[in-house]
Amino acid sequence: MVVSLVVQKYGGTSVADPDRIKAVADHIVATRRAGKDVVVVVSAMGKTTDDLEHLAHEVSTVPDGREMDMLLTAGERISIALLCMAIIDRGEHAVSFTGSQAGILTDTAHRKAKILEIKADRLRDAVTDGSIAVVAGFQGVSTTSDITTLGRGGSDTTAVALAAALDAEVCEIYTDVAGVFTADPRVVPTARKLDRVSYEEMLDMSATGGRVLALRSVEFARNHDVPVHVRSSFTWEPGTWVVQEDEVMEQAIISGVTHDLSEAKITITHVPDRPGIAARLFRALADDSVNVDMIVQNVSTEGHTDISFTVPRDDVARTQKAVEQIVDDLEASGFSADENVGRVSLVGAGMKTHPGVAAAMFETLAQEGVNIEMISTSSIRISCVVASEDVERAVRVLHVAFELGDDG
Amino acid sequence: MVVSLVVQKYGGTSVADPDRIKAVADHIVATRRAGKDVVVVVSAMGKTTDDLEHLAHEVSTVPDGREMDMLLTAGERISIALLCMAIIDRGEHAVSFTGSQAGILTDTAHRKAKILEIKADRLRDAVTDGSIAVVAGFQGVSTTSDITTLGRGGSDTTAVALAAALDAEVCEIYTDVAGVFTADPRVVPTARKLDRVSYEEMLDMSATGGRVLALRSVEFARNHDVPVHVRSSFTWEPGTWVVQEDEVMEQAIISGVTHDLSEAKITITHVPDRPGIAARLFRALADDSVNVDMIVQNVSTEGHTDISFTVPRDDVARTQKAVEQIVDDLEASGFSADENVGRVSLVGAGMKTHPGVAAAMFETLAQEGVNIEMISTSSIRISCVVASEDVERAVRVLHVAFELGDDG
Repeated sequence: MVVSLVVQKYGGTSVADPDRIKAVADHIVATRRAGKDVVVVVSAMGKTTDDLEHLAHEVSTVPDGREMDMLLTAGERISIALLCMAIIDRGEHAVSFTGSQAGILTDTAHRKAKILEIKADRLRDAVTDGSIAVVAGFQGVSTTSDITTLGRGGSDTTAVALAAALDAEVCEIYTDVAGVFTADPRVVPTARKLDRVSYEEMLDMSATGGRVLALRSVEFARNHDVPVHVRSSFTWEPGTWVVQEDEVMEQAIISGVTHDLSEAKITITHVPDRPGIAARLFRALADDSVNVDMIVQNVSTEGHTDISFTVPRDDVARTQKAVEQIVDDLEASGFSADENVGRVSLVGAGMKTHPGVAAAMFETLAQEGVNIEMISTSSIRISCVVASEDVERAVRVLHVAFELGDDG
Repeated sequence: MVVSLVVQKYGGTSVADPDRIKAVADHIVATRRAGKDVVVVVSAMGKTTDDLEHLAHEVSTVPDGREMDMLLTAGERISIALLCMAIIDRGEHAVSFTGSQAGILTDTAHRKAKILEIKADRLRDAVTDGSIAVVAGFQGVSTTSDITTLGRGGSDTTAVALAAALDAEVCEIYTDVAGVFTADPRVVPTARKLDRVSYEEMLDMSATGGRVLALRSVEFARNHDVPVHVRSSFTWEPGTWVVQEDEVMEQAIISGVTHDLSEAKITITHVPDRPGIAARLFRALADDSVNVDMIVQNVSTEGHTDISFTVPRDDVARTQKAVEQIVDDLEASGFSADENVGRVSLVGAGMKTHPGVAAAMFETLAQEGVNIEMISTSSIRISCVVASEDVERAVRVLHVAFELGDDG
């Protein structure tokens, strides 16, 4: 008999205090007693990671990357141990594993390491012995035997990667929301929970402000075809399945509206429209580790053009410094930075076969008097940069116009 | 040129908050810039270990030993990372190491593991590369690749063991007191700091209530001839050297008076005085992992005797249960437990050649009206169990009688 294996991931709010940890232990034990093998991935409790980062900045002006990883990984160490104790208290076997013990081998890029390989022998042995394996999310060990972290949202990636390595039937991501919604319910009260979305839609949602799943974990799930089930650890109700596109029934044209207020817009004005200009600009930014997101370049008039792009607001100072040094070299007339912007995106796989979506989106925003500053599209997404004070209004009118809500 | 290596150990109060960590980093950097190689051992910050234990008891009735070790070791992980960041901030290289990374291999006894071997290659490489190595105290990795802890006071043992493995010139133990005193200064205001004590005296002091150094670390230092310097991380003044007896100049008859209120006295009454009785009793207790300390058996009268012994107060319930089960088997008339006791000890290597010490001690206590309930002696120590309310008074009169104080 083949027993099927489930990977369950619990985020920080799901294990924020002893009572939450005991509730999670109850659910894990129930899953086990329903006949499943269970591998659990846990984040640090509540705000632990933020608290540790704060401590780091109290003792150091620029905390060392290797030491920051050593520090932050203490958080998951605490949560895996406590969760195991609670499970054992309920009469099941449980064994905790650090990222290193779980065989999560990464590259050496501290604070944003990439998983190279998972040597899951120890986890497999534990599960074969009848134990519930509880793994520290967000962390691994590098090729030089140093402790690494996978960056924010890294626990989702740990969970999906383990689900792939262990050939799990599903990777359940437990969080403090009920699933993936057609829009942020705090902005749009009529937002509706989606039963299923495709990996591609989820990718675009995560990339444009949907905070439910970390982008890298969705990429990993798509590449390894891991079914992901996003659900609540507070209600334990079924949530949203993230699966292959052909498994998504009743494909809607638009799956959701997302928004993001974390970026700023930089514009380089009156740049000569010559080959190599964009390359020099973005190479300079890449060398300074600035994460450029959207890039828009208009057609040129009289041999000159404007180049606009968005960067995380935290990177604006660094970006301005880098641009300052090359703006003469680019023969541009100048540049400006605007933090007072936000992005609104429509995401939906059905868009590919419905050419009128972009037009309908722009009309809706125009009727509402929302000015569009930048536009960028992919085959299943349209994003508009607008003034930040217009963002929530834009989300609401688009949600109504595309009939996404419960009232749709 | 051979550069000499210093091991420095900082306890929890020495790194209790960011300001303390920065003060410790200053001292480490100063030591390094004075031309020494430095390996640092750190405990968890302040009350971290207690806080983590408390959390464990909130999620679990009897926390699992393996998981408790996983949990508690998070504490040192935080302090080593923060201390390294602070050192790096001051312009020196520093690298943190968990017990496992430092090559501290232990047996598999969770919560009280013993160090089997230290594979210090990684530490040596770091030091050779010009780095300050900062090692998590109190922890190691077992022969089965599980995380272990060495028990309370384990960071002292880590430091002394590393000093032995790395052939350090000295193991400096930084703490919140200025050194080893002739008595607890909170009880005896005139208590005097000792410049030097022998390993043997320090062993007896640690075993009888001196809380400055953990017993196991002193044993380790003696067995490997590691000079230990106990000193304050608040004043940075020279403290007390713990060294070979022949290096202790001007050997005093008595080095200090110690006291201990953590034990209880158990008495088994009217036991037949036959071979094998004591063996059966203490085998039963050992099988229940009760740590018996002093044992006193009087000469028998009419073929029967009383056996008294002391155990930690935490073990009293377990001890009573074990004794209950064998008291009939031992043909004893009954047993009693008394938690209202304490122990006062005189420690001094000079005692070996001064036979009158015991008599003088008993006379002093008798003049003060302190009744002695049990007596036990070694070649350099005399311990008396007395009523707990008499303990501090006994310490004070003995400190005066043996002229130990600044006014002596």
